[in-house]
Amino acid sequence: MPVSEFDLIRTYFNKPGLIPTQEQSARIPLGIGDDCALIDLPPEKLLAVSMDTLIADVHFPAKADPALIAQRALAVNLSDLAAMGAEPLAFTLALSLPKAEESWLQAFSLGLETLVQTYHCPLIGGDITKGSLSITIQVHGLLNKDEVMTRKGAKPGDLVYVSGELGSAGLALSLMSNGMSLDKPDTKELHVAYFQPEPRISLGQGCAGIASAAIDISDGLMADLGHIAKQSDVGIELDAKAIPIARAVKKIMGAMGDRSKGLNLALTAGDEYELAIIVAEDRREALQQTAVAINVPLTLIGRVVKGSRVKCLDNNGHEIEVKNLGYQHF
Amino acid sequence: MPVSEFDLIRTYFNKPGLIPTQEQSARIPLGIGDDCALIDLPPEKLLAVSMDTLIADVHFPAKADPALIAQRALAVNLSDLAAMGAEPLAFTLALSLPKAEESWLQAFSLGLETLVQTYHCPLIGGDITKGSLSITIQVHGLLNKDEVMTRKGAKPGDLVYVSGELGSAGLALSLMSNGMSLDKPDTKELHVAYFQPEPRISLGQGCAGIASAAIDISDGLMADLGHIAKQSDVGIELDAKAIPIARAVKKIMGAMGDRSKGLNLALTAGDEYELAIIVAEDRREALQQTAVAINVPLTLIGRVVKGSRVKCLDNNGHEIEVKNLGYQHF
Repeated sequence: MPVSEFDLIRTYFNKPGLIPTQEQSARIPLGIGDDCALIDLPPEKLLAVSMDTLIADVHFPAKADPALIAQRALAVNLSDLAAMGAEPLAFTLALSLPKAEESWLQAFSLGLETLVQTYHCPLIGGDITKGSLSITIQVHGLLNKDEVMTRKGAKPGDLVYVSGELGSAGLALSLMSNGMSLDKPDTKELHVAYFQPEPRISLGQGCAGIASAAIDISDGLMADLGHIAKQSDVGIELDAKAIPIARAVKKIMGAMGDRSKGLNLALTAGDEYELAIIVAEDRREALQQTAVAINVPLTLIGRVVKGSRVKCLDNNGHEIEVKNLGYQHF
Repeated sequence: MPVSEFDLIRTYFNKPGLIPTQEQSARIPLGIGDDCALIDLPPEKLLAVSMDTLIADVHFPAKADPALIAQRALAVNLSDLAAMGAEPLAFTLALSLPKAEESWLQAFSLGLETLVQTYHCPLIGGDITKGSLSITIQVHGLLNKDEVMTRKGAKPGDLVYVSGELGSAGLALSLMSNGMSLDKPDTKELHVAYFQPEPRISLGQGCAGIASAAIDISDGLMADLGHIAKQSDVGIELDAKAIPIARAVKKIMGAMGDRSKGLNLALTAGDEYELAIIVAEDRREALQQTAVAINVPLTLIGRVVKGSRVKCLDNNGHEIEVKNLGYQHF
């Protein structure tokens, strides 16, 4: 029997746990079920919006656990809000599916619910269509008008920080692309890094008003810093030995005979969803206090300079040759 | 040579004609090129958002002119703003493409530009990914807080109006699905109705504050009125002889031996993007004056009654059997 989009929405998406709570309804006077959803913005706030698509077998394995696909799709979008310092408000979902399979939709819906609850970011609308598996999400967040943190504010002399550790998600993708599974104890950390990246929402909000610029690492550390360099018209010099390479990556890459133990991966792998943060020297302490207060590791990895390139320097100040500078989309 | 998403965005999307004008920048302090776009909402307004996906060979023929695909994708989204009475503000675009073909992208971009200019609705962000051809658009519009027009406000005794004429887009789809081309003079009207539907933005805005409820006809007149009936907890009775069937539909269906000359099609075909408007008897004149002022034909087609069903009645008040009640998505 054919299933209508409306049945699917009612059963799997228009339900408590996903839709706005009564308290959230003050900002969302109308959610799923009409021609539009409605957002009521506090007068002192801007609305930040970001849209990302994840395609099966391009951005995730089609056969992956639907709950993890859902979590990854929402997390990578929330990461864009984090990079602007915005507070999550709500999201819309365009889900394209080859067929309406009950168990898949049930798991996908539950996966979404976990993040909706964690980040207080309910579902307010979208579309379900028949097609090859892909997920487009738009997130909406709130930002103080006087605390906008873009990619344009970096100045020579500023310091470059990165949150967390790098390389795990990149290695996970590389192993999965080569047909390896990530279900061993040694690779569990990689699996979590890839499928359940933690959007740095609290850190992003904490940085707003302190940092000069920020970006989330979706294309690769050097490529993403390149966006900041370009938009701020500056150069960036990274200190190779300071780059925080994830423990599991060091171990596995070391065992594979990689002498720099994953440095190249940490510099270039996309999908990490840590934040790269640029801060003026005199705001350095405020930034560090913020990171300590919310318990997110932050590492000083370099400095903004005059110029236009992003370089990674070894102990002797020589530029390290980096292979595969970020993700090519086509 | 591989092409990056950033090159494509720069060449085909981040350009004058598509992005906000200097005047529009007051409401859009940040557009394409950062982690998020930013929207600054006037305090007396709500933001209306709607998201729709169009999949190649489901919602449009993959081989169709890319300019027309672009126009249809944006128009069907704008139609949702029209149904809420919202003024277009901006849109985001998630474009999934099998390959980055210059001529296709050029035409697609120009197609978008036409509607961006007509409806003052610039592009502020999105995503381009490699995958099977599909287009997800989210539109954002402005609405006065005291003029929200939903699907819930219909009351027994209210009158039911529809804008324009019905059936052309449905017949176009049906003919194309059966391998027929629409390039003959007699079918040109159908081609335009399908690929270049005119979102009823002015009419929608004019209705806000007057109508009890409104919806755009994307699933089919009776199916969409069914959404209003359900959400308003009312029944609706349509007068078969009043349904405005498009001239081309009458002619072609008549020639095909359809004695009701396309009535069933006009009642059930989706993709029409006319507005169905419910209005209280005492606001009838205000609605008609609005329609005359903006020069949109409006036809009285029925009445809201107690009950829960949408029926179409013949001259003798007998219910007409309607086949294929709206589009089944899966």
